[in-house]
Amino acid sequence: MCAPFIIEGVRAELSRRGFLSGVAATVVAATSTAQAQTGARAQSGAVRLGGGFRNVVDLTHTFSPRLPVFPAFKPVQIKPKFSIAKDGFYANEITFDEHTGTHMDSPAHFVANAPTADRLPVDRLIAPLAVVSIAMRAAKDADAMVTVDDIVAWEKQHGRVPRGAVVAVHTGWDARIGTPDRFLNKDKGGTMHMPGFSEAAARFLAQERDIAGVGIDTLSLDIGAAAKYVAHLALLGAGKYGIELMANLTMVPASGATIVVGAPKHENASGGPVRVLALV
Amino acid sequence: MCAPFIIEGVRAELSRRGFLSGVAATVVAATSTAQAQTGARAQSGAVRLGGGFRNVVDLTHTFSPRLPVFPAFKPVQIKPKFSIAKDGFYANEITFDEHTGTHMDSPAHFVANAPTADRLPVDRLIAPLAVVSIAMRAAKDADAMVTVDDIVAWEKQHGRVPRGAVVAVHTGWDARIGTPDRFLNKDKGGTMHMPGFSEAAARFLAQERDIAGVGIDTLSLDIGAAAKYVAHLALLGAGKYGIELMANLTMVPASGATIVVGAPKHENASGGPVRVLALV
Repeated sequence: MCAPFIIEGVRAELSRRGFLSGVAATVVAATSTAQAQTGARAQSGAVRLGGGFRNVVDLTHTFSPRLPVFPAFKPVQIKPKFSIAKDGFYANEITFDEHTGTHMDSPAHFVANAPTADRLPVDRLIAPLAVVSIAMRAAKDADAMVTVDDIVAWEKQHGRVPRGAVVAVHTGWDARIGTPDRFLNKDKGGTMHMPGFSEAAARFLAQERDIAGVGIDTLSLDIGAAAKYVAHLALLGAGKYGIELMANLTMVPASGATIVVGAPKHENASGGPVRVLALV
Repeated sequence: MCAPFIIEGVRAELSRRGFLSGVAATVVAATSTAQAQTGARAQSGAVRLGGGFRNVVDLTHTFSPRLPVFPAFKPVQIKPKFSIAKDGFYANEITFDEHTGTHMDSPAHFVANAPTADRLPVDRLIAPLAVVSIAMRAAKDADAMVTVDDIVAWEKQHGRVPRGAVVAVHTGWDARIGTPDRFLNKDKGGTMHMPGFSEAAARFLAQERDIAGVGIDTLSLDIGAAAKYVAHLALLGAGKYGIELMANLTMVPASGATIVVGAPKHENASGGPVRVLALV
């Protein structure tokens, strides 16, 4: 895995088309045979879309009991219940706490009577994707926060955050996905240290921009060491949704992709696992 | 709810543009205030997509314990586990058998060593949508099957089934979603009677056309009275996926929409609940 600052340097040097070709190559090189076919097929698939999209990138981690989980929650349980040998078909029973895996926080997760995930307007689930990287800073400081200046710097380069966008933050934490202890990064006192949104940036996005939601590659919109859920409250309190534990944010451009959020639709969902795809 | 044959008549009389305007109006009229915003916003949202899409239609039923389930499986359990009053946030624990709600059958559901849902190539999840209706026939005969002739008739009107398509069958059974007994439609001997794919049509789609998968608004690709899972085996055996218990197939055109399948990504998934959206 490249260190985040190397990825950032490479990204800056490549044209958008060059970057996208690079992505396809990376996917093919980095994954299993079955998944390599994904990278290869994604280009022909996207051509069929006819919407000017050339590629599909999966922003979702495989949901397994080995993923890091926020301390309040338990890992997913996947119990084989029917088998082809015994029953003629194969099926499992799945049990999870809603906020595990690559998942959505609906406004109702923190705000009484706010919309649950199953009731979010469907057009909010298909959105322009803005990717803001703080990975260089987070590599040196695990308590690093997205600031208003980070958003403003993104806008200087890419224009105003589009109406209805999802603003996703790449902190580099996805590189720790295979080592849950390093992911949670607890100190001797048990306090976690993971990057997140500052309250000011959360308020700015919630109030000064017209977004659908935000995303991050850590387990929480707030920093791990947060005493209160200030970023959650600023964003969910304004009716925005969050997506946590996102994957592959280095494989999409900072601007110009469209995100499709396969949000949970179980009744009264405070959130839940999502399948998140990017069309680029 | 209109009888299926009335919906079909109305559909035939409307131009595509007129039909789509009608959809938006129907959604607004038929749903709650929160959901009405969905219909209204879907048009502006789709404009942002920039891919020539004008609307987003949700092909997913709300996943609740009151949905009909295939006899082998249990209804979903949604257990409140954390509350804002007591814990500062709201979250549930969810337990389900994979083949409940609007859900996917991966090839591995019936075929040993075939791909599980989490390993399907991502570009297969975004596909041209072909909708074949047998609702007129199914209204008179609950054991009605999609035939090769139905596919050929669709192709005479709309052209060859596109490469990588999802072919979804509207049987009219979604109108029974609120009455599980009528949905399963068991006779005195306990045999279910629901429409489905004929083995010949399943083989034709699997072998003579280059599709990604199929869909249906009933609980099974096979008819309820099937003695063997012949349609499942023909389709999943050829590496295609199925989507069962689809919603709102009357609200998308027979040809020209794009389906986005928010497939489950839990490890070793034989299938599982999906969020299915159509871009029209």
